[in-house]
Amino acid sequence: MKKENGKVSIAVIRRLPRYYRHLSELRQQGAVRISSNALGKAMGLTASQIRQDLFCFGGFGQQGYGYNVEKLRDEIGDILGINRGHTAVVLGVGNLGHALIQNFKFGNNGFRVEAAFDIDDDVIGTTVGNIPVYSIDELDDYLVRHRVDVGVITVPRNVAPLMAERLVNGGVKGLWNFANVELKLPEAEHVVVENVHFADSLLTLSYMISKPENDDGEEE
Amino acid sequence: MKKENGKVSIAVIRRLPRYYRHLSELRQQGAVRISSNALGKAMGLTASQIRQDLFCFGGFGQQGYGYNVEKLRDEIGDILGINRGHTAVVLGVGNLGHALIQNFKFGNNGFRVEAAFDIDDDVIGTTVGNIPVYSIDELDDYLVRHRVDVGVITVPRNVAPLMAERLVNGGVKGLWNFANVELKLPEAEHVVVENVHFADSLLTLSYMISKPENDDGEEE
Repeated sequence: MKKENGKVSIAVIRRLPRYYRHLSELRQQGAVRISSNALGKAMGLTASQIRQDLFCFGGFGQQGYGYNVEKLRDEIGDILGINRGHTAVVLGVGNLGHALIQNFKFGNNGFRVEAAFDIDDDVIGTTVGNIPVYSIDELDDYLVRHRVDVGVITVPRNVAPLMAERLVNGGVKGLWNFANVELKLPEAEHVVVENVHFADSLLTLSYMISKPENDDGEEE
Repeated sequence: MKKENGKVSIAVIRRLPRYYRHLSELRQQGAVRISSNALGKAMGLTASQIRQDLFCFGGFGQQGYGYNVEKLRDEIGDILGINRGHTAVVLGVGNLGHALIQNFKFGNNGFRVEAAFDIDDDVIGTTVGNIPVYSIDELDDYLVRHRVDVGVITVPRNVAPLMAERLVNGGVKGLWNFANVELKLPEAEHVVVENVHFADSLLTLSYMISKPENDDGEEE
């Protein structure tokens, strides 16, 4: 899966968080060591796929002994950048913004949310889950004064591109985009956009419950 | 990508909603016809990958003429089950439940949300985005009286497994699970679970902004 130029394919990268999640659960359940067979079974992958994936990042396993759960989890966490002290701000404190700030465990994923921004006077000046909510008018100035790695975009889709532009101009490295609109950032190719498309997920489910035979594919 | 037994791999299935989304956007922009090269470019896939994917479902394209945007979109929509009149109920009308009911376009994806359920007396008996909110106590009875294809789970993770069990006993075909907990449904292998793991998405972004060189992988 490693590409010729030494880059790791996005397919492998996208499996890493799943490894991290499964290994975290295994650790919580008290597992110390796991074979690639067992890990593969838990994740719906073949043992050979697992070995191949982890080989991209330098191995880890010991032939015949399997993987040390905690060590592998921590190393994958490291690769994923969990210990970098990433900071984030949330743009849009509507229902979804609230849900993310209050219920999503940013901290478990190595992120600290430091501020939220909205246009609604009813929420500006309040705190949501201990996070202060500022006026969107203060965003540019805030970004000058603070290092922000990621902007979380939960504003309506019609204003999302403008918000993305302001975040990029303010120096963020990544956008976590829930606005269901493609963000075109031609002048900022160094900024990574991660889109969360709820529809892609629901349509996959739609397919699975619609098809005549219930074959489950090869993944979880 | 077609497996030996004729089943289509989950990797292809998971790309179908992306095809549908991109083709919908192309249609909105007035595109009538598109080559596999151009479609591939828009989606971050190779033309050969596109042809291979669509071949799994019987072709569509005409050598040298590309694809008819609307026809391909509609056929993929059909494959995804968009015209089956799927019904859904939402369990949990907290921030995320509100966000989904009020802002997510279930209708565009072929789903009709018919009811929501919660334990909070403040929301029971109200409507959210025209959807009536019932007491969770009424769920089992509701499922006897109505055909519900999918249960959307936005309740806290500690009660999610119990809610999943009740939905499965009530005859749903699929669970759309936002509770960030693996739902084990051993006695109901015919029920499909689609998990939305926000953390997997954020950790992918974390990786992309953490690695030294900014290689973008091979996908959008």
